[in-house]
Amino acid sequence: MSRVIFFNGEYKDYNNALTHVEDRGYQFADGVYEVFSVKNGKLIDYRGHIIRLTRSLNEIKIKYPINIRSILFHMRNIIKRNFIEDGLIYLQITRGVAKRDFKFPKNLESTITIIGYNIPGNEYDIIFEKGISVVTTRDLRWKRVDIKSLNLLAPVLAKQFAYEQKAQEAWLIDDDGFITEGSSSNAWILIGNTVYTRPVSSSILNGITRKTLMKGLNKHGYKLKEKKFNLEDIKRSKEAYITSATQYVMPVIKIDNKKIGNGKVGKFAKIFKDIYLESVQLSD
Amino acid sequence: MSRVIFFNGEYKDYNNALTHVEDRGYQFADGVYEVFSVKNGKLIDYRGHIIRLTRSLNEIKIKYPINIRSILFHMRNIIKRNFIEDGLIYLQITRGVAKRDFKFPKNLESTITIIGYNIPGNEYDIIFEKGISVVTTRDLRWKRVDIKSLNLLAPVLAKQFAYEQKAQEAWLIDDDGFITEGSSSNAWILIGNTVYTRPVSSSILNGITRKTLMKGLNKHGYKLKEKKFNLEDIKRSKEAYITSATQYVMPVIKIDNKKIGNGKVGKFAKIFKDIYLESVQLSD
Repeated sequence: MSRVIFFNGEYKDYNNALTHVEDRGYQFADGVYEVFSVKNGKLIDYRGHIIRLTRSLNEIKIKYPINIRSILFHMRNIIKRNFIEDGLIYLQITRGVAKRDFKFPKNLESTITIIGYNIPGNEYDIIFEKGISVVTTRDLRWKRVDIKSLNLLAPVLAKQFAYEQKAQEAWLIDDDGFITEGSSSNAWILIGNTVYTRPVSSSILNGITRKTLMKGLNKHGYKLKEKKFNLEDIKRSKEAYITSATQYVMPVIKIDNKKIGNGKVGKFAKIFKDIYLESVQLSD
Repeated sequence: MSRVIFFNGEYKDYNNALTHVEDRGYQFADGVYEVFSVKNGKLIDYRGHIIRLTRSLNEIKIKYPINIRSILFHMRNIIKRNFIEDGLIYLQITRGVAKRDFKFPKNLESTITIIGYNIPGNEYDIIFEKGISVVTTRDLRWKRVDIKSLNLLAPVLAKQFAYEQKAQEAWLIDDDGFITEGSSSNAWILIGNTVYTRPVSSSILNGITRKTLMKGLNKHGYKLKEKKFNLEDIKRSKEAYITSATQYVMPVIKIDNKKIGNGKVGKFAKIFKDIYLESVQLSD
C-alpha cells in the first residue's frame, strides 16, 4: 500500500506528491523543516519542535501556510493513515512557488509537506547495543545553522564522508578546532563525571532532544557543562554520545577510528537514554 | 500562452512541470545549476558554463542525467519553443528522488530541469544607464561557494536585505573584512587605472562573465589585478561594477549609500561592457 503525504491541504498518494519546479525550496533551499519522532503512535516533544519551527520561519520571514493547530491535526492524520507506531514525521515549509528571483517575491503562499515514515521499533535498540562510529571533518556549513533550513548540502556531504569511512555520523570542526555538532545531531562527551556539550549559538542547532536530555540530567543531579570541546578533550573522554529526535541518546564508541573508553557502549549511555525517555513529553 | 519547461526528458507546460517532494533538491539543496544568457536567440559562452557545470557535478558526485550534447539540444528547443530572443536559460540538476536520508542513496537517477525566461532586450540598457546601488553585508554562505549549488539561502537573504535598503545587489564581506563577491555576481572596483577583482578560491564562484571580461581587458591592455579588496579600498575607487551571466558588466554607482566617483555611471563602465560583449562566444 502506498504511503500518504500531506501536501498543501491535500492527502496524496506517495507517488503523486509533487511540487512545482519553481518552488523556492527546490531552487534556493528557501524553506525550513522539523523532524518529529513518533513512539507508540505518539509525537515526542511536539511543543518544542513547533516552537523551534516558528522561530526558523520568523528568522527568514516565511509565514505559516496554515494555523498551528491544523498542522498538529494533519500530522496526526499522517500518523494514522500510514499506520505509524514507531517512526518519524517530516514537516517542511517553503516560501512557495514563483518565477526565479533571489529576493522574496510578494504575496507568496508558502508550501507545506508532511511525510510519515515507519521505522521498526527495535531498529534503534539494535544500533544502540553496538554503538556508532564517528569521524570528524571540517564544518563547511553556512553561518546560521541555528535556523533549521533546507540549506543542507554541507551536512549531506559530511554524512556521506562518514558513510564512506564506515562511520555513522560526522562531527564537524570549526575554524578554531572545536566540534560544533554532528551533521544531523548534537555532540556530547563525558570527561570524569561531567557531561559536555557545546553551548547554543548560531554555530549549532538548538536541539530539542539536547534540551530535554539537559533537563533530565539536571533533575537527576548529573554534572553538565555547556562548553566547547576539541579533539584533545575527546581523547580524555570516557564516553561520547549523539542526540537527535530520531536517535534519542546514541552511544559513540569510536571517533576517527580511535576507541572511546574501552570501545564498548559505556554504562552511562543507557542511563542517559533512559533519563531522556523519562523526560520527554508525549502528545497523542 | 504558457511557457514550456524541459523536465526529465519531457516538455511540459509551465504549470505541469512538477517534481516529487522527496527530490533531494527539495529536501537537501542537493543539486547544482547554471544560468546561461541568451542574446539574439544565441547562448553566451555556452562552453564555459558547461565546463563549470561538469565541475560542480563532479565535486558533489552527481552524474549527468543525459549526455551533454542532448542538454544543448534541449536548451535550444527551450529557446525556440518559448520564442526567446533575449533572456536566459536556467538549467538545474539534482541528485534525484529518494526516501529522505542525508547520505547519497544508491542507484539514483538525477533530475534535470531546463527553464527559459524572456527578458526584454532593453531592460539591461535601462538599468545600465542609471547604474545600480550596492549594500554590504556579512558573508554567511557555506565554505564551498565555488560549487554552483542550490545551497542558496544565504544569498537569498542577502539579496532581500539589499532590496529592503533600496539597493539592487549585496556585496558579501568575509571574516577578515574583504569583499568576497555579490549575492549573485562577481564584484569589481577601479582604483587609479587598475581594475581589481578577487582571485578565484572556494570563497567565490569562478564567474564565466568574470573570466571573459578578464580576457577582454587583458587583450585591450587594461591593468587588471586579481586581489582582495575591502571597504577602505572601495572608498578610493573611481568606479565599481558587478558581472554575471545576465547582468554582463553593470556599473555600481553607490555602495552603502556612499557615491562611487561622482555617483554617476563612469566612463569605463561602457568601455568594459563593450569589451565584454566583444569577447563572448555565441552558440547558435
